[in-house]
Amino acid sequence: MTDKHQQRMAAKKAVMDAKIAKATEERGILILMKGNGKGKSSSAFGTMARSLGHGKRCAVVQFLKGREETGELKFFRDHPMVDWHVMGDGFTWETQNKEQDIATAQKAWETARPYLSNPAYDLLIFDEMSYMFKYHYLDVEPVVEALQQRPKHQNVIITGRTMATPLQEIADTISSVEDERHAFRLGVKAQAGIEF
Amino acid sequence: MTDKHQQRMAAKKAVMDAKIAKATEERGILILMKGNGKGKSSSAFGTMARSLGHGKRCAVVQFLKGREETGELKFFRDHPMVDWHVMGDGFTWETQNKEQDIATAQKAWETARPYLSNPAYDLLIFDEMSYMFKYHYLDVEPVVEALQQRPKHQNVIITGRTMATPLQEIADTISSVEDERHAFRLGVKAQAGIEF
Repeated sequence: MTDKHQQRMAAKKAVMDAKIAKATEERGILILMKGNGKGKSSSAFGTMARSLGHGKRCAVVQFLKGREETGELKFFRDHPMVDWHVMGDGFTWETQNKEQDIATAQKAWETARPYLSNPAYDLLIFDEMSYMFKYHYLDVEPVVEALQQRPKHQNVIITGRTMATPLQEIADTISSVEDERHAFRLGVKAQAGIEF
Repeated sequence: MTDKHQQRMAAKKAVMDAKIAKATEERGILILMKGNGKGKSSSAFGTMARSLGHGKRCAVVQFLKGREETGELKFFRDHPMVDWHVMGDGFTWETQNKEQDIATAQKAWETARPYLSNPAYDLLIFDEMSYMFKYHYLDVEPVVEALQQRPKHQNVIITGRTMATPLQEIADTISSVEDERHAFRLGVKAQAGIEF
């Protein structure tokens, strides 16, 4: 019994080792976290914690601002290796003003763009950026171009429900977070530390 | 044009506000992060950063240990509000020893269990725990029972590819992270700050 287990696992290890041996290219990647489920932005911030643990320099640009003081803002903003920019005036149904939303989106992109030509930054997070394309507040082409010209080692994570096709075409990793159940629909109130 | 936009957004806001008004229950939730895509554990750690930003006390038990020094371990382990336990001897195909894996799983559960009766902890993360059930290293029933009896305000996040059905039955939020693309398959080597 144990021998069979050992043999199966040894075979699995050989397969895994061969796969790992084939992945040799060293470069930064573009990660898209999309889908309607909970966990896209928190995944980006968890990856940032991971990068900070290895001494990497990071920048966050939040394209939509929902609440004044999120837990992630409070937690990360004073870290010496983190730049954190909260842009946006809230969700589009809060402002109800398209011109204002477009101006804010443009300002957020002007904040984000210089990081894509700054090799001092190892990880960039453009949080909720995908809505800018969905609502046509930003053109995707200049963003694709800037992403393609960024420093080779730089990693970028973009989050948001629906992703513009040109971003999906150039992405290295795409995870789609599917909502199978959400406490909110069970009547549980959004709470500090979990939803914001 | 602008008026139409304003009207549409005002209607959307009314729908959102009504939904928010209906979610009034205040309690901790059980979140499952499952699926084969990248971002499950990092989502849990991002949520932990969010909780820490609000001054919440957290504990992490990692049921599988892949590498010696992950970025998340380095980043969080010295935080005064975090307990961090790395259990496990690596993946099953690394140990190739079923008895050892079972003993390690049991020890990890004995480490995790007391937190579920300790109201001082607001957020618990049982990282990669789902493998323990998949490989029959742990029974799921005692885990379900302990989860159901935990302090009312306590949030728990369990991560792992496949989730045991009894856990899905009692979960409040389930996100399934689907792998649409992964840099690893494009030949990009796993890198510090992104994969570990």
